[in-house]
Amino acid sequence: MGARWKGKGSEIAAASDPMSRIVANLQSSLIQSETCGLLSGCAVLIGAMPELTGLLNRSCFGRSVVTADADKQWFQLSLEEAFYLSHDLKCLKIIGEDKCPKSDDELWLYMKSKKTMFPDFYKAYSHLRTKNWVVRSGSQYGVDFVAYRHHPALIHSEYAVVVSSEGASNESPRLKIWSDIHCTIRLCGSVAKTLLVLNIKKNDHDTSSPSCLEKFDVGELIIKRWNPERCREDQQTIGNDKSKSPI
Amino acid sequence: MGARWKGKGSEIAAASDPMSRIVANLQSSLIQSETCGLLSGCAVLIGAMPELTGLLNRSCFGRSVVTADADKQWFQLSLEEAFYLSHDLKCLKIIGEDKCPKSDDELWLYMKSKKTMFPDFYKAYSHLRTKNWVVRSGSQYGVDFVAYRHHPALIHSEYAVVVSSEGASNESPRLKIWSDIHCTIRLCGSVAKTLLVLNIKKNDHDTSSPSCLEKFDVGELIIKRWNPERCREDQQTIGNDKSKSPI
Repeated sequence: MGARWKGKGSEIAAASDPMSRIVANLQSSLIQSETCGLLSGCAVLIGAMPELTGLLNRSCFGRSVVTADADKQWFQLSLEEAFYLSHDLKCLKIIGEDKCPKSDDELWLYMKSKKTMFPDFYKAYSHLRTKNWVVRSGSQYGVDFVAYRHHPALIHSEYAVVVSSEGASNESPRLKIWSDIHCTIRLCGSVAKTLLVLNIKKNDHDTSSPSCLEKFDVGELIIKRWNPERCREDQQTIGNDKSKSPI
Repeated sequence: MGARWKGKGSEIAAASDPMSRIVANLQSSLIQSETCGLLSGCAVLIGAMPELTGLLNRSCFGRSVVTADADKQWFQLSLEEAFYLSHDLKCLKIIGEDKCPKSDDELWLYMKSKKTMFPDFYKAYSHLRTKNWVVRSGSQYGVDFVAYRHHPALIHSEYAVVVSSEGASNESPRLKIWSDIHCTIRLCGSVAKTLLVLNIKKNDHDTSSPSCLEKFDVGELIIKRWNPERCREDQQTIGNDKSKSPI
């Protein structure tokens, strides 16, 4: 499954405006405007002036929220997005429901308390974001994330991402039995996405502070159907092109 | 999602030839011909003469196997299908790999040894078959079974069935987290099937012999998406028809 650009000119538009540059601009803008995020349950809210609104939209962080506030556009960030801006890009201060700014360690514990698998999900999210993939929720497709090569207005998502974790206590229950694997691969096929399993290896490190993230390894696994009929040696169509992948 | 008949006349053809009668004819034919099934790994093989071949095809038991045998058509039955014919309909003797006929108890233990969740799967299979649903493997759709109102030549399958079990040791890992539920419902929607979860309650009975089956309860659960926009009171289209289900 290759990149599926939306319409003519999208590939050129994306190449002339790389995601790494958009995110760097967002980072500068957030630092300059001293924007604060407000913890609110399982999300972080930020109010943005027009320039920042444009950058948040172009870099695909958060979802805009309709409010009566005429001055600011409000955005709702997921826990992973907020922690990425705060901890990795160091461009967002986050204020708790008690009105006090939160340290990275406090945020980490808060997010773990809201989402048991947060350390695994965050490692997977940041792993893809640092490689300049745009990462959005995959709930529409029954996976954890979807990953886009550039902005969703220009291209369809290429990967449906499932986070799998090694570890006794909070091991992910996904993709452990055949029916679940069949279901996920069949759905990915019908929406033209490739199933990417990110296997988070914690190497026996505890997850009490975000410093553990550096010690985690990420295993990347693509799962595809194997079609035996397309793998037969005597098939002329494949026999003519030896370099072609049989899958 | 209603019944989706294949072409004109299919519904009439099905009504004039009810599945209960076809299965009763299969039962008589198997008893008269004293057909034996041969245990072979996770399947049971039976060799059938033309009349029996027709009845197996019409009742949707087993899959035909291509062999060099000119006299007989061979069929491969799943463990659930074989046990249903042997234990419930009492019309098939099954012979082990040691050439000895197997009692119901021996068969039960053999099948459990091949498939940990066999008691649950068999209860679900027989629950639907005794209600005259045609039940086939759902592996193509990432579920445990699919259920048809009549022969698959006449109608598409209506239900995608997932077997869920209550019990500590072999609890089904399916549909325990949101991403799996989303994935399954989305896939069911895209192939126009309704997700039916059969929840097998063992009521603390052990599964050492097939007599436990009578003590199991089967909970039937339909899972559908709820669309809030189609549920608004002020929508004229729904407001006009108060009897219509909002989902």
